[in-house]
Amino acid sequence: MERIEGGHVTTPRGFRANGVVAGIKVSGRPDLALLVSDTPAQAAGVFTTNLVRAYNVDRNRRLLGAGQALRAVIVNSGNANVATGEQGRRDTDQMAALVAARLDLRADEVAVAQTGVIGVPLPMDVIRGAIPDLVAGLGDDGGPAAAEAICTTDTQIKQTAVQVMLDGVPVTIGAMAKGAGMIHPNMATMLCFVTTDAALGTEAAHHALVTAVARTLNAVTIDGDQSTSDTCLLLANGLAGNPLVEDLDDPRLTLFTEALTAVLDPLARLIARDGEGASKLLVVKVNGAVSDAQAAQAARSVAGSNLFKCAVRGSDPNWGRIACAIGYSGAEVDQSKLTITLNQVLLMFEGEPQSFDAAAVSRSMDAAEVTVQVDLGLGRGLGVAYGCDLTEEYVKINADYTT
Amino acid sequence: MERIEGGHVTTPRGFRANGVVAGIKVSGRPDLALLVSDTPAQAAGVFTTNLVRAYNVDRNRRLLGAGQALRAVIVNSGNANVATGEQGRRDTDQMAALVAARLDLRADEVAVAQTGVIGVPLPMDVIRGAIPDLVAGLGDDGGPAAAEAICTTDTQIKQTAVQVMLDGVPVTIGAMAKGAGMIHPNMATMLCFVTTDAALGTEAAHHALVTAVARTLNAVTIDGDQSTSDTCLLLANGLAGNPLVEDLDDPRLTLFTEALTAVLDPLARLIARDGEGASKLLVVKVNGAVSDAQAAQAARSVAGSNLFKCAVRGSDPNWGRIACAIGYSGAEVDQSKLTITLNQVLLMFEGEPQSFDAAAVSRSMDAAEVTVQVDLGLGRGLGVAYGCDLTEEYVKINADYTT
Repeated sequence: MERIEGGHVTTPRGFRANGVVAGIKVSGRPDLALLVSDTPAQAAGVFTTNLVRAYNVDRNRRLLGAGQALRAVIVNSGNANVATGEQGRRDTDQMAALVAARLDLRADEVAVAQTGVIGVPLPMDVIRGAIPDLVAGLGDDGGPAAAEAICTTDTQIKQTAVQVMLDGVPVTIGAMAKGAGMIHPNMATMLCFVTTDAALGTEAAHHALVTAVARTLNAVTIDGDQSTSDTCLLLANGLAGNPLVEDLDDPRLTLFTEALTAVLDPLARLIARDGEGASKLLVVKVNGAVSDAQAAQAARSVAGSNLFKCAVRGSDPNWGRIACAIGYSGAEVDQSKLTITLNQVLLMFEGEPQSFDAAAVSRSMDAAEVTVQVDLGLGRGLGVAYGCDLTEEYVKINADYTT
Repeated sequence: MERIEGGHVTTPRGFRANGVVAGIKVSGRPDLALLVSDTPAQAAGVFTTNLVRAYNVDRNRRLLGAGQALRAVIVNSGNANVATGEQGRRDTDQMAALVAARLDLRADEVAVAQTGVIGVPLPMDVIRGAIPDLVAGLGDDGGPAAAEAICTTDTQIKQTAVQVMLDGVPVTIGAMAKGAGMIHPNMATMLCFVTTDAALGTEAAHHALVTAVARTLNAVTIDGDQSTSDTCLLLANGLAGNPLVEDLDDPRLTLFTEALTAVLDPLARLIARDGEGASKLLVVKVNGAVSDAQAAQAARSVAGSNLFKCAVRGSDPNWGRIACAIGYSGAEVDQSKLTITLNQVLLMFEGEPQSFDAAAVSRSMDAAEVTVQVDLGLGRGLGVAYGCDLTEEYVKINADYTT
């Protein structure tokens, strides 16, 4: 497996993309993206579990549930089209229909994703007006333009690609993502779109995506607020020409899943690092849990603790807050077996606090990445979480909005 | 039932208290409190469910579990004595023994509570040195001094008392509490001590306390970080002379529980309002849930949402964040039945956004209290949560600590 320098969502064969300024965002930045596969692509998706959610999530889930191959995904930023009632549902359906008409597809071959302000009607006139240019500009070098147009307050675009050999055939996986930002202070939404020219069966694609997302995108926590619109879609168009991978026990699927994980992992870290107002990436690794699920739960609890996030902000090696967050995580914990390491310095060993050079550890926390390693001492479960520090800037971004 | 102007923890008959500067806090503020009942008091308690917790929590729970009547509670602020290993356990036992010796009691008649920095050994020398003065200064007007000495970064002391008639006998309930503050940036801990001269059976006292706490102190969320030391203790010494209330079905117990709730409710609001860095009290009421438990869960989810707390900070009527937090709360939700009111203005009705004067609602949110009312439209469950806004000051308090 090899990372492709400068790789992106149209690096795999048979994908084209584009991103344009439609005028949804008042800032005048790009806000409408289109991703197209030249041939029907097997699709898999994972979505928010929030019970208040975008209609596009329900629509995409319905398409995938029906085993529908996808040809295109249209994404707008600047407006989440959530809680917009019956009109909002009609608008999303129309977005798909407009793209389908222009590309000579059926509407149910087009997925829709949206991010931005909640409860405001989608400006369908500007979207309708932008679609001709959006389609005309599609290109196999359009990945970066699309990656930019899906961003909200992200400070950088997030894309990558890797190549892996399946049966001697080079297969490419590309992806773009957006993280926790917004055009108006609203919902932090994670969107991620993955393309591959690998030939995968529907079930195999779904299995690979769920496995890779669990280890990467689902390990991210910015502020504990789960969005109404979180979406990760995988499109596999088979143009690499590898023999179809269908069986869930197929070792080639394991290989593909590892490569997919390698695509999503740096995006997950970028999303966490680029969390609203964040100045540092926080990586929390937990081992010794009763199960992998409990390890992930404990890791997320530490990465999500406001108090510890503030300590990371202030470069304060306040391991009491780590122990506290582990304790209320819901994972099985025996505090007499708890071992905590911060930036490779041992702070607590099997429940007993260790003496350490607090000033030196504090200095080490001034770096762009802070790593916590927790050993629960109970079993073989492993898990990781990616987070960021909580800063005054986060509060400013999300409070200083004058209605 | 009547609130007693200026009432506190020694307003009920037969209780004395004191608070002194022992020297645990570097600030030189009072940090050691003692509460004594002149006669053995039936005791009930509720405690943190954090699996990493103070030894004093385990010790108090053991005393109560054995049906031990209590005579005294000693509380220090400035040091939580958590994650201090075997030495920390010996220190807590010794605190109880020192008080018991001075008051001619058995050590297991003395409860201990602690709040402050984690992982630092308790300065037993200064505590030992302060106990003679602490005991000598006990008085039936000592409630306010004790209430001050249990505080950390609380900006005001929190105490109240009410009187209620049981069988024509006036019974008094007093309480003191501390909230989400710290001497060093560490664990936000809630401590609450309730006294009453009512004659209550052990089981009745426990039932009343659990019921009242569920509606009040357990409805508070400052930052989602559950402390290692949260403790609420009730001491009932029976000196009012009312006929003993033992039966859980006794209507007098219902009356007592209502009075106890009236004591704890203003303390819960004060604790939320006095959350670290908070500028406003946030009250979230949920009705129409499938159950009371789900209503409380949904209310806590809104009161605990960082994004909505920032919106409250900025007086932004961003109801999308309310809907979002309801959606991921874990409570049963049907978004087409969701109705949201903010400061008595209807923002969403049965899933459809309503037009409203955003500037006027924003102005109304500049007040010291912001109220959200959510109707889930599914059942008869009711619940409430008390929270506060998330401010730059919260981050500063918890980050700007130079080790």
